[in-house]
Amino acid sequence: MQLVRLGEPGSERPFVRAGGEGALYELSGLTADIDGGFLAADGIARVTTALERGNLPAAGPAAEGLRIGAPVATPGKVVCVGLNYRRHAEETGAPIPAEPVVFMKAPDVVVGPYDDVLVPRKSAATDWEVELGVVIGKTARYLDSVDEALDHVAGYVVSNDVSEREFQLERGGTWDKGKSCENFNPLGPGLVPAAEIADPQDLGLRLWVNGRKWQDSSTRDMVFTVAEIVHYLSQFMVLRPGDLINTGTPEGVALGQPDPKPYLRAGDVVELEIDGLGRQRQTVRQA
Amino acid sequence: MQLVRLGEPGSERPFVRAGGEGALYELSGLTADIDGGFLAADGIARVTTALERGNLPAAGPAAEGLRIGAPVATPGKVVCVGLNYRRHAEETGAPIPAEPVVFMKAPDVVVGPYDDVLVPRKSAATDWEVELGVVIGKTARYLDSVDEALDHVAGYVVSNDVSEREFQLERGGTWDKGKSCENFNPLGPGLVPAAEIADPQDLGLRLWVNGRKWQDSSTRDMVFTVAEIVHYLSQFMVLRPGDLINTGTPEGVALGQPDPKPYLRAGDVVELEIDGLGRQRQTVRQA
Repeated sequence: MQLVRLGEPGSERPFVRAGGEGALYELSGLTADIDGGFLAADGIARVTTALERGNLPAAGPAAEGLRIGAPVATPGKVVCVGLNYRRHAEETGAPIPAEPVVFMKAPDVVVGPYDDVLVPRKSAATDWEVELGVVIGKTARYLDSVDEALDHVAGYVVSNDVSEREFQLERGGTWDKGKSCENFNPLGPGLVPAAEIADPQDLGLRLWVNGRKWQDSSTRDMVFTVAEIVHYLSQFMVLRPGDLINTGTPEGVALGQPDPKPYLRAGDVVELEIDGLGRQRQTVRQA
Repeated sequence: MQLVRLGEPGSERPFVRAGGEGALYELSGLTADIDGGFLAADGIARVTTALERGNLPAAGPAAEGLRIGAPVATPGKVVCVGLNYRRHAEETGAPIPAEPVVFMKAPDVVVGPYDDVLVPRKSAATDWEVELGVVIGKTARYLDSVDEALDHVAGYVVSNDVSEREFQLERGGTWDKGKSCENFNPLGPGLVPAAEIADPQDLGLRLWVNGRKWQDSSTRDMVFTVAEIVHYLSQFMVLRPGDLINTGTPEGVALGQPDPKPYLRAGDVVELEIDGLGRQRQTVRQA
């Protein structure tokens, strides 16, 4: 099953796709939104029960025509792990990190999986990054061990950690300057419950630009696993329900290519997917 | 006048302090909260008008006993400028930045001005930073000029940008790891409307630990002014109503002192103030 939010930006309503055919059911009777409060209150279990009992109304055909929003409401925070795939660290010339490299994205740059990617004004180096997104379901604060970390994960989602490399690396200060531009985090289409992903460390992930494949890897190449990341972050900050963690991108970003690097331009089409989590497609536009 | 939010964490209600005696009035009839939506909808002007017309009910004496929360609801994002006072850049051994150094704090670390500062577990270097906080009142996106920047500011507030220096500087990655620990951003007591601050670049700001004064400077020492910061940030990200900008701290942080540096320990008391914006007081506790 996939939790989805459909409707115009800021007015999305909650639905669930379930069954072999991906039938769409209304969740509005169960919750106003798919957000931290819903996840913390065992929302996913309640959806599962309601589906089993046939208690959810089927969505009308009009719902299939609605815009697909991010599958969770604007997160309280978006925490990102950098250089977390061995071959991506190598392509950027960075050493394999000894402990997770952490940075932040502004939560308001999360948009839907088919919304436009915007090239910022004066940008010359807008880049893509397919990533496994982790949505927190239960507050994680100073977790005692890596073993209990995955209990705090609500589910997984495809995330595009769009990045402006000149802003990120050459304009002084931290990476954040190139990570929080408008629309820089397409998310979705669906939030897949953690229970439905047998092994988050065995998921293929791929990204294409204009039909050419640039990224093609597996979460097996991660330096730090999802469980290690959640445990680690919980020593530095409180992870709350609805928070999003972007767990790093594999090799194949524009930054890693020989000059002239193939940074995104208006008109380009970006497509990305992760096994079992679905597919995104964005058109690139000038901001 | 100062907008304030009083009540237990997560249940704060809006009030305004006004007049020479600082009388307290209820705002619940006017707005459910002091947040981005309120500020964007000319909330401050509506409060001013209601005060002039005598339309606001006086708060009962019980209100004065309530906990003081942060004066705005959890921001959509907290953007911070580093090394923005000349003498602070010098004390940390950093060059004066050529353009603003930007990093992020997780929005959920914003707490009230009298709430405890928590020393993270395994922290050896928890530090203080008195800062002028800027709350955005109107969406700022690719502003054309510095001249229009201050029109987008709702008001000013005292902010303590608490920082863990080992997490920030010695654990790999960006500064964010040492900036987003639990309770790391006491804010308040009041949001002072921009119209009541004659010159944001002429405000004294001071900080004491256990009665000893460590920081004593003026916003005149800023490298980049508030207007320049708002204009600059708007080229990289969309600033939205309710967002908070921490504009940097002056010299006098623990990091800038000779060894052994006087980092915060459980039991310490931190007090800070900015001219015209009021005063904070935090007790330091172990997380």
